[in-house]
Amino acid sequence: MTAPSESSTSSGTPGNADAAAWAVINTIKVLAMDAVEKSQSGHPGTPMALAPAAYVLWSKFLRHDPTAPTWADRDRFILSCGHASMLLYPLLHLTGYGVSLDDIKNFRQWGSNTPGHPERGHTPGVEVTTGPLGQGVGNAVGMAMAERFLAARFNRPEFDIVDHRVWAFVSDGDLMEGIASEAASLAGHLRLGKLCLLYDDNRITIDGSTDLSFSEDVQKRFTAYGWKVLRVSSGNDLKAMQRAYAAARRESDRPTLIILRTEIGDPAPTKKGTSGAHGAPLGAAEVKATKAILGWPEEPFHVPAEAADHMAKLGRRAGREHKAWRKVFAAYAKAYPTEAVEFEQWMAGELPSGWDAGLPTFAGEKGLATRQAGQVVLDAVAKALPNLLGGSADLAHSNGTVIKEGGDYTAETPGRNVHWGIREHAMAAACNGMAAHGGVRPFAATFLIFADYLKPSFRLSALMHLPVVYVGTHDSIGVGEDGPTHQPIEQLAMLRALPNARVFRPADATETTECWKLALERTDGPSMLALTRQKLPVLDRAKYAPAAGVRKGGYVLKDASGAARVILLATGSEVHIALAAAEQLEQQGIPTRVVSLPSWEIFAAQPKAYRDEVLPPSVTARVSIEAAATFGWERWVGSAGTTIGLDHFGASAPAEKLYQEFGLTAGRVVDAARGLLQGGTR
Amino acid sequence: MTAPSESSTSSGTPGNADAAAWAVINTIKVLAMDAVEKSQSGHPGTPMALAPAAYVLWSKFLRHDPTAPTWADRDRFILSCGHASMLLYPLLHLTGYGVSLDDIKNFRQWGSNTPGHPERGHTPGVEVTTGPLGQGVGNAVGMAMAERFLAARFNRPEFDIVDHRVWAFVSDGDLMEGIASEAASLAGHLRLGKLCLLYDDNRITIDGSTDLSFSEDVQKRFTAYGWKVLRVSSGNDLKAMQRAYAAARRESDRPTLIILRTEIGDPAPTKKGTSGAHGAPLGAAEVKATKAILGWPEEPFHVPAEAADHMAKLGRRAGREHKAWRKVFAAYAKAYPTEAVEFEQWMAGELPSGWDAGLPTFAGEKGLATRQAGQVVLDAVAKALPNLLGGSADLAHSNGTVIKEGGDYTAETPGRNVHWGIREHAMAAACNGMAAHGGVRPFAATFLIFADYLKPSFRLSALMHLPVVYVGTHDSIGVGEDGPTHQPIEQLAMLRALPNARVFRPADATETTECWKLALERTDGPSMLALTRQKLPVLDRAKYAPAAGVRKGGYVLKDASGAARVILLATGSEVHIALAAAEQLEQQGIPTRVVSLPSWEIFAAQPKAYRDEVLPPSVTARVSIEAAATFGWERWVGSAGTTIGLDHFGASAPAEKLYQEFGLTAGRVVDAARGLLQGGTR
Repeated sequence: MTAPSESSTSSGTPGNADAAAWAVINTIKVLAMDAVEKSQSGHPGTPMALAPAAYVLWSKFLRHDPTAPTWADRDRFILSCGHASMLLYPLLHLTGYGVSLDDIKNFRQWGSNTPGHPERGHTPGVEVTTGPLGQGVGNAVGMAMAERFLAARFNRPEFDIVDHRVWAFVSDGDLMEGIASEAASLAGHLRLGKLCLLYDDNRITIDGSTDLSFSEDVQKRFTAYGWKVLRVSSGNDLKAMQRAYAAARRESDRPTLIILRTEIGDPAPTKKGTSGAHGAPLGAAEVKATKAILGWPEEPFHVPAEAADHMAKLGRRAGREHKAWRKVFAAYAKAYPTEAVEFEQWMAGELPSGWDAGLPTFAGEKGLATRQAGQVVLDAVAKALPNLLGGSADLAHSNGTVIKEGGDYTAETPGRNVHWGIREHAMAAACNGMAAHGGVRPFAATFLIFADYLKPSFRLSALMHLPVVYVGTHDSIGVGEDGPTHQPIEQLAMLRALPNARVFRPADATETTECWKLALERTDGPSMLALTRQKLPVLDRAKYAPAAGVRKGGYVLKDASGAARVILLATGSEVHIALAAAEQLEQQGIPTRVVSLPSWEIFAAQPKAYRDEVLPPSVTARVSIEAAATFGWERWVGSAGTTIGLDHFGASAPAEKLYQEFGLTAGRVVDAARGLLQGGTR
Repeated sequence: MTAPSESSTSSGTPGNADAAAWAVINTIKVLAMDAVEKSQSGHPGTPMALAPAAYVLWSKFLRHDPTAPTWADRDRFILSCGHASMLLYPLLHLTGYGVSLDDIKNFRQWGSNTPGHPERGHTPGVEVTTGPLGQGVGNAVGMAMAERFLAARFNRPEFDIVDHRVWAFVSDGDLMEGIASEAASLAGHLRLGKLCLLYDDNRITIDGSTDLSFSEDVQKRFTAYGWKVLRVSSGNDLKAMQRAYAAARRESDRPTLIILRTEIGDPAPTKKGTSGAHGAPLGAAEVKATKAILGWPEEPFHVPAEAADHMAKLGRRAGREHKAWRKVFAAYAKAYPTEAVEFEQWMAGELPSGWDAGLPTFAGEKGLATRQAGQVVLDAVAKALPNLLGGSADLAHSNGTVIKEGGDYTAETPGRNVHWGIREHAMAAACNGMAAHGGVRPFAATFLIFADYLKPSFRLSALMHLPVVYVGTHDSIGVGEDGPTHQPIEQLAMLRALPNARVFRPADATETTECWKLALERTDGPSMLALTRQKLPVLDRAKYAPAAGVRKGGYVLKDASGAARVILLATGSEVHIALAAAEQLEQQGIPTRVVSLPSWEIFAAQPKAYRDEVLPPSVTARVSIEAAATFGWERWVGSAGTTIGLDHFGASAPAEKLYQEFGLTAGRVVDAARGLLQGGTR
């Protein structure tokens, strides 16, 4: 542990040498105050406190090009404390990212590109959407992992075409969240030397002093994780911050935490250092008084020419590094043309043409759990997509997510099998970071029940339009003996209700191939593959419809012998129960159609004509069966239909026994269908 | 930090002095092996490794009475690594908790009381349901918090009627999970001296060595949290363990972590120390070889008389402490009769009669957010229920969950306002621990969006039938400027889909009172109160139906002027939009009924006659409006109805603007209703 400096300069009083620096810093402070004041909403205090730290980073360390926000080898900057968005927007404005002063005036307004929290894809220069605390720490870890993976793959002697760092600003709240602990422990384990977190140690949370709830020794805790920890004792000591960043940049073997003691809202005379500066406008009087302290005109949104010029110049200068890199890359492309093409293809997120040619087909096999089929598919996919990497939260073999010959992702060698440890939440957030970084296709696996543990990050995959592939195995009471703590019930509904997520629940090995394929073809959001623990028959596609129907989300797997009087709808393992029930109903003279519905989202997005073809409105006797909460199934079975599922928790017993006891049987489906035909009501 | 001993004895070779001890220990090992072997499912290795540690704890430290598993002043024992359930069941069997040898033979079978993971309420002596990792750590913290609160309330000079400890066994997986970090940090902050975790440092996870993913210094990390940390270098060194437990028991000012180096599966000759001993039967040959090493007969489930007698004796001896306590309590009841009655009432989980007499009514007020109404209700409830305690994850004032004059729960004084810090997950798990401990009524508050962060613990509240009250405010895009990261969309569906949970979304202040009341009346599961950020009118109940209808989950708030042609269904803030739409429809000559549906679960549980009265099957023109995912609403609007909601993410802008832009308006409801009447389809 090195303490670069314990000295501090007094607040807001620049020396002559860095007048331009303080002009910029104070511009950020003022814009933050003014924007929050104008919108009467937002968080002024943290941008004010972190303005100096951000200035030093952005002016002297951050490798970026405001004219090319997606430059592959840029440093990544993450504002994990996303509520401090008014720190980032002024920086983007001043350095030339195309955020205008009007945008800043429209902070938090409809249609503006300066939303309350930074949103990826919404504002150039915003790497990830932050706000839910702790997520940025996980994202940062994933980005640093992606960097190392790509560097190992593409760098060649004299060509370090991948060589950038990840900088993240984090708050007390970030560090209190469990996800940050998971991510930090993993980062220490992997010795991610290019990762640096700056911790805004302001000793204030919304409810008051951190003394209310937070008295741990953060420095010792991060040292325990294997991090290098530096301290800077004043948020206004530019030189000390510069030394700390420089030390972080010199470090190659450990991630670095810089603990920066700040005063929230500095220099607001009555509110600085209090929770009153955190999440509400300072108020006109306080803003006025603060501007007086800063020697600023009262006029809102004033940006002195000195600050604008200085940062614009820095922005332009930053572009030079990009130019230099482009030269190096051009030389690289000559020396290593194949690698260069591949690098660009990876960074563009494109699948190589014909990538799916080698995907497995399944036929005639004996029973195969869809998780086992998933492993077979992954074996093929991993060969076709060398930038696919990921792993499981300590359940790799159970999940069927081992990339054979992919090597382990360790501190020494960034292979393709990541051992996330029992850290589902950080796993998902790191996958978001990897996907947001670009160049790699990440996947994350665990038991489906533990989707609960990673839900906040899964939501952010969807919100950020990141094509992370999630594998959730042991997807029902088919788990059996492990009992109700491990048996998903409401998880499918939880994930299906989320916008822009796709949930796949394939009925057999063949559908599993199609689902994996659809998940990988996605470019704009996450997919969850819900796979069985238990073996399932591999459907003979000569007898049933081709699994290509999966591409429409739902399809007639087995049609009725005549005009269907009953439609059975099912997903995953319960499709086989539906098929058995249909056979019995047919034997009883009731023409019955079976629809497999592996992805509700894709099916719902089909034209009405197709949906009506699969589920003709005239056939109202419909029974759904799924070993999960029936919640939501009314969408497909309609008022006249019946849902069979589990609106209670599971139990510990062999799977077959549970299916019997809980009435997930062909007999019950038959009875329900007959009941509907006989005019029974639900 | 004290290291009680670095010495170790060799595996499974008892000295003469503790022959009985080893008979018991080896009985546990053998029963674990045999039960897993018989069911061909389960985790033998950890019970084998922890049998000595469990024996020492249960024989010399654990304050309990097998004949009275709910004795108020017992120590609480939590097996956080719930997969090691076959450690606990033999202990319950041998000490006399009414778990028979046949029960153990029926491990993981339908109807047995020995499920795969320990389940609260299912097996006497099981304090909490564990299995999802990390939860037990949070539960243990909550239990220790409850103990301290009750001790402060009820103990009197010479009457320590509340004076017990919490012991938990935890695994690598528990400590990797973020929730454990949150809980441990909080426990250190609160200086919970009666909490002791024993960490099974076996260096093995399912995927292999912990070296794959876990290299942090756990001792240093917990020291950073403010814990006392002890090390025992061998899982077989009974004396060293005894010294460590004794040191933990002497400690009053800090929680204690005992790091116990163990060998998983010890002494299985080929599998010990490997992940092969973790989650699968050892196999007949290995079991046989292990029994040979232990000098055990091959016959399955053999329990030597020496072990049975010794533990039965210890079980009986344990009862003596209970007897002594009962004497003390009888004397206490004489000296402090009021307190004694109250103590028993609290422990019984009973609400005092007339508790709800002072609950507020609201009328004629100006607009009031339901979170503000919630604060008013809480003020009254807190007076009536002095055992209600809880708090917010750093949003107390925003959530409206401050107990005035309740005092803070600090390391010095256990008041009623808990500052959980920004640790939603540990907050919920600790509330589960408090509720499972008994004597207190815990509540947990955060923004509704962060229900995501605590979902795994919320699920366990439901699974364990614990009446935790959750308050989730800022329950829709009504959040406004904070944007999509903070605006719930799918959270209501996620929570409604969970069995045994109740979600309440009151439409105004008056309904808020009813919902809080229902939540507190519950004894068998959690409730989530979804409350608005934004102000809402307080409905004039002279004009609308009484809010008592809330008690049936849904009710006709405003009936149509004539036979209803249209039914509008809504919850929370959107009820007011429905009312406005109904007024317009009525003006257009369309008799329209408005149904407020604050709790789907309670409404669904009403007799069909009542449901049909509220939603007559003949009226199929139904429109639902809720500022959330429409997922699940088909259950109430039927095939012929229409749902209005948000099947996409929100945005950052003032709330009113968002309602307009996203079409959550009376005009749209009117159009939808008219469309239905004109035979439009969805």
